[in-house]
Amino acid sequence: MTAALDFYFDFSSPYGYFAATRIDALAARHGRETVWHPILLGIVFKQTGQQPLPAIPIKGTYALRDIERSARWFGVPYRHPSRFPVSGTAASRAYYWLESSDAAAAKRYALAVYHAYFAEDRDISSPEVAADIAAGCGVTRDAALAGIASAPVKDRLRVEVESAIARGVFGSPYIVADGEPFWGSDRLDQLDRWLATGGW
Amino acid sequence: MTAALDFYFDFSSPYGYFAATRIDALAARHGRETVWHPILLGIVFKQTGQQPLPAIPIKGTYALRDIERSARWFGVPYRHPSRFPVSGTAASRAYYWLESSDAAAAKRYALAVYHAYFAEDRDISSPEVAADIAAGCGVTRDAALAGIASAPVKDRLRVEVESAIARGVFGSPYIVADGEPFWGSDRLDQLDRWLATGGW
Repeated sequence: MTAALDFYFDFSSPYGYFAATRIDALAARHGRETVWHPILLGIVFKQTGQQPLPAIPIKGTYALRDIERSARWFGVPYRHPSRFPVSGTAASRAYYWLESSDAAAAKRYALAVYHAYFAEDRDISSPEVAADIAAGCGVTRDAALAGIASAPVKDRLRVEVESAIARGVFGSPYIVADGEPFWGSDRLDQLDRWLATGGW
Repeated sequence: MTAALDFYFDFSSPYGYFAATRIDALAARHGRETVWHPILLGIVFKQTGQQPLPAIPIKGTYALRDIERSARWFGVPYRHPSRFPVSGTAASRAYYWLESSDAAAAKRYALAVYHAYFAEDRDISSPEVAADIAAGCGVTRDAALAGIASAPVKDRLRVEVESAIARGVFGSPYIVADGEPFWGSDRLDQLDRWLATGGW
């Protein structure tokens, strides 16, 4: 067992969703743990001058097609959300609130949020919806709402986003293994071999 | 045997280089032919507001690392060019000039241009260098230079770029198989399965 992998993702990122369904099993094959870091791409993009995919002419049209095809490739349910992208602030705060007491529950929560958004078209940007989803992960809805609104949790998310930017994270998913960065669900194959071989 | 695959690429695109070393063998496994289309991403990017990778903050730094790692992943020689990107106009014209008499020689030429640029750091934007490389593909250097400068060849490249844009091509490599578009050397795995299964 060596260092954990850092897995950065945004709750509005389809490719982050695909990676989230695979990353822990991939890491476990190599005896590795993971630490999940929901971040806010909207803030990250301001640093790099990037735009959300749908806003980019021509490429955005392709991206929607690639996302739906890749969902089938990864074998995960997908229905493109009626609002896309949306803010991941409430869900990310709920994630860090849960993680402070139970990291495994927080991961289950993240997967549930992704499913709610990308398979059920629920508006995960709403604190109420974010709290409803948390209520399926062993906490009460009211406790989750209070957690989302608490100052330490807000600070935690802010620090996570700033740390990610400082580390060079510019997209989702973004995985760092032993100092080596991998961007995109289409780099999971390289990550897998990197962990198996120690790099090349 | 059904319709040929269309393979669009720019001679300054490392991911186009990686795909060029694989696409014909991949297509042949499924009984398919390919038609290669060198294009000019500089013109394409004006349509979509995109920038060359090195110009993008943070993401550009990652891209250089990903390119060198991916070259080793694909098992192809790579030395990042001292000038990058450069114009593919001369080499693209030489490609279409060659292709008008010998499509197989044109493909060998394209692979030789990629090797010259990405493994030997030669300035493929120079018509003289583009012609020197053609001289290794069964034609004379002087004939290649005349071909590069000829009006029909210039028109052909212009039409190819315009047709690519009209078709929605926004990057390199970009492959169209039975109407389905695949962008990036990291979509060759999906393309392979698409050809095997007829889509999903």
